[in-house]
Amino acid sequence: MKDMLAHADIIINESIGAVLPDAAVRRALDGLRLPESVTVISIGKAAWRMARAAAEALGPRVRAGLVVTKYGHAESSIANFDIVEAGHPIPDGNSELGAGKALALVRGLNAGDAVLFLVSGGGSALFEQPLPGVTLADIQSVTSRLLASGADIAQINTIRKHLSSVKGGRFGKACSPARVYAVILSDVLGDPLDAIASGPAVPDSSTSEHALDILNLYGITISDGMREAILSETPKTLDNVHTLVTGNVEQLCAAACHCAERLGYKPLVLTSSLDCEAREAGKFAAAIAREIRTSGRPVAPPCAVILGGETIVRVRGNGMGGRNQEFALAAAERIDGLENTVIFSVGSDGTDGPTNAAGGIVTGGFAARCREAGLSIDAYLADNDAYHILEKMNGLVVTGPTGTNVNDLAVILVNQ
Amino acid sequence: MKDMLAHADIIINESIGAVLPDAAVRRALDGLRLPESVTVISIGKAAWRMARAAAEALGPRVRAGLVVTKYGHAESSIANFDIVEAGHPIPDGNSELGAGKALALVRGLNAGDAVLFLVSGGGSALFEQPLPGVTLADIQSVTSRLLASGADIAQINTIRKHLSSVKGGRFGKACSPARVYAVILSDVLGDPLDAIASGPAVPDSSTSEHALDILNLYGITISDGMREAILSETPKTLDNVHTLVTGNVEQLCAAACHCAERLGYKPLVLTSSLDCEAREAGKFAAAIAREIRTSGRPVAPPCAVILGGETIVRVRGNGMGGRNQEFALAAAERIDGLENTVIFSVGSDGTDGPTNAAGGIVTGGFAARCREAGLSIDAYLADNDAYHILEKMNGLVVTGPTGTNVNDLAVILVNQ
Repeated sequence: MKDMLAHADIIINESIGAVLPDAAVRRALDGLRLPESVTVISIGKAAWRMARAAAEALGPRVRAGLVVTKYGHAESSIANFDIVEAGHPIPDGNSELGAGKALALVRGLNAGDAVLFLVSGGGSALFEQPLPGVTLADIQSVTSRLLASGADIAQINTIRKHLSSVKGGRFGKACSPARVYAVILSDVLGDPLDAIASGPAVPDSSTSEHALDILNLYGITISDGMREAILSETPKTLDNVHTLVTGNVEQLCAAACHCAERLGYKPLVLTSSLDCEAREAGKFAAAIAREIRTSGRPVAPPCAVILGGETIVRVRGNGMGGRNQEFALAAAERIDGLENTVIFSVGSDGTDGPTNAAGGIVTGGFAARCREAGLSIDAYLADNDAYHILEKMNGLVVTGPTGTNVNDLAVILVNQ
Repeated sequence: MKDMLAHADIIINESIGAVLPDAAVRRALDGLRLPESVTVISIGKAAWRMARAAAEALGPRVRAGLVVTKYGHAESSIANFDIVEAGHPIPDGNSELGAGKALALVRGLNAGDAVLFLVSGGGSALFEQPLPGVTLADIQSVTSRLLASGADIAQINTIRKHLSSVKGGRFGKACSPARVYAVILSDVLGDPLDAIASGPAVPDSSTSEHALDILNLYGITISDGMREAILSETPKTLDNVHTLVTGNVEQLCAAACHCAERLGYKPLVLTSSLDCEAREAGKFAAAIAREIRTSGRPVAPPCAVILGGETIVRVRGNGMGGRNQEFALAAAERIDGLENTVIFSVGSDGTDGPTNAAGGIVTGGFAARCREAGLSIDAYLADNDAYHILEKMNGLVVTGPTGTNVNDLAVILVNQ
């Protein structure tokens, strides 16, 4: 069991290591043939790390670089890079400043030039320049009114893309005729490219007409300047953009798979898009663990069943925890007494809910130890207080913030 | 897709067919070497069907037989069998009559004699004889007081076993020195033998001391007669009993597995003890279907991923449905647009919740058809009204009552 817990640690560290912005960018650059001179624009919460990895890999080939990231996320200067820190989740003046600098850097490039565009989550707020005649305050106001009217996120994004000079493919278009190599660290399940950072280099499928229909539907009135902006259409094709998704939950799962296999566990990936309620997913995982233990199905021990995705928590109590901790705790109860069985769930960002833990890890002996300690798993679950019982019973996984965010990894580890 | 729906039908019919009481008893008797003369006692909701199958298989070898089943569950007389119909879920005078007749039939048997004891769900209420000094009303009263005090089902069963002359292994003991061949149709996940029909032929692990501790814990007072009964200990070993679990959820899954394989789908059993919330299990299943579709994992199409167990429904709305219908409907939303993908969930008893359907079946095209028809899956789910949307969109599975009850079967069917 001690070995299995050590193995779990190794799997967690290696899997997250594989999707760190640095590793993800290096892997992406290995597969790209960039010209001798490259303009690097890096936006999002992982922008600084992605830029640093690119700077290390490309060295003097970086003609000019720009990082636009969240306040406090730039760790130091990077040679040849300008760094702007801006507002998140609410865009501010620096978001405009950053987008303006990026547009200036790519203006006047030629067909032989290349832009390496590094994109991570948060880019939608951090990187923004309203179209002429529109202000950031206009965009904020229409967004809040749409939210209050019950519009969904897809409808709100349609409006925002039509008010921005960088979203909805417009930044990609602004780089033209230069080639754009967009390298995307995905924090959205299924990698919908137009949703990550609002798709600055992704052709927009929504139209001006859609946008106006949505405003009419909810009876939202706008200024003449905004109406004129909306009528200018977003790009429907972008021939100069090559997009590569590099850090995502599939790679997280693949890394877990390879690592588990190397440690002697037969891996089986069940899904990389788990999205149900966390505690129910934990119970489901426990039911699979029991089957492995009793019948050797769906895979015989030693084995590692791997789940990627992002579950949700319905908050009912007043405790502390996160989706990964609830997953593990709910599983603990249902693997009670199973030998050589470990279940863990961790967030790749190292921050599960509002806690300092990345997730939770439990064994078949966890529930018995709780009973001995007089702690009721049910009571802690009912109060959404997974953190405190896991903390007491040595079931927290703590990695510290990792600097990446490609959803969560859960693993059922069963040994003979 | 038409083929896949036909295949789903075949899998449902064959799987349930394999765990019908008749088939289960025939399979069990094939593996047993019974002597020339057998006393057959059949108790539970499936008692009549199990007895009929035994009568057909054993013919004149049945020395004497007894069926104790629920009112309305005996379909006709069976040669050499006495039939008693009794109260369920509340035991009544006929429950005592049935237990009394059974005890009389096995009294005085010799070591060379054999009792075939056929047990199905419901036996706990249908088959009861209080110990001397205790009445059925006493047992009812202590049960309700324990329930009201917050005692759990294990604690309540400990008390009931110690007040009964047939539960907790006492019927098996009463057959001694005759050999007892107990054939059990299991409706309880994991087949805890002492829980099915309160284990009339299973040694009891609880003691008189346990029972008295529980009464003290909840401050329940009892008559002197009851106290004296509790002090007489239940059997801790039963050397004369041979137990065989024949119809259970593992066999349901195994039959689905074989049938799917014959139809050309590679089968993968994930669990036979699924017990989380129905709609969340449906979402989890959908996440696996998506993975199969996009990456060929955990198994490449054509494939059948098989889940057995019994999920639960948390009732929030006022609609009509059952756990299997909610499972299928929740999955429908999350396999929206997947080609050649079918998910179904059915109860082996043919009755899902308070409906005339056994469960639900959906395809990757189901959600689109709902949208076209102006029906919101979310709204029906929120009202726990899976039945009516499945009914409208041709997504109900209707088998009629099957006469067995070995939990549920859910299958993810994906074709190339």
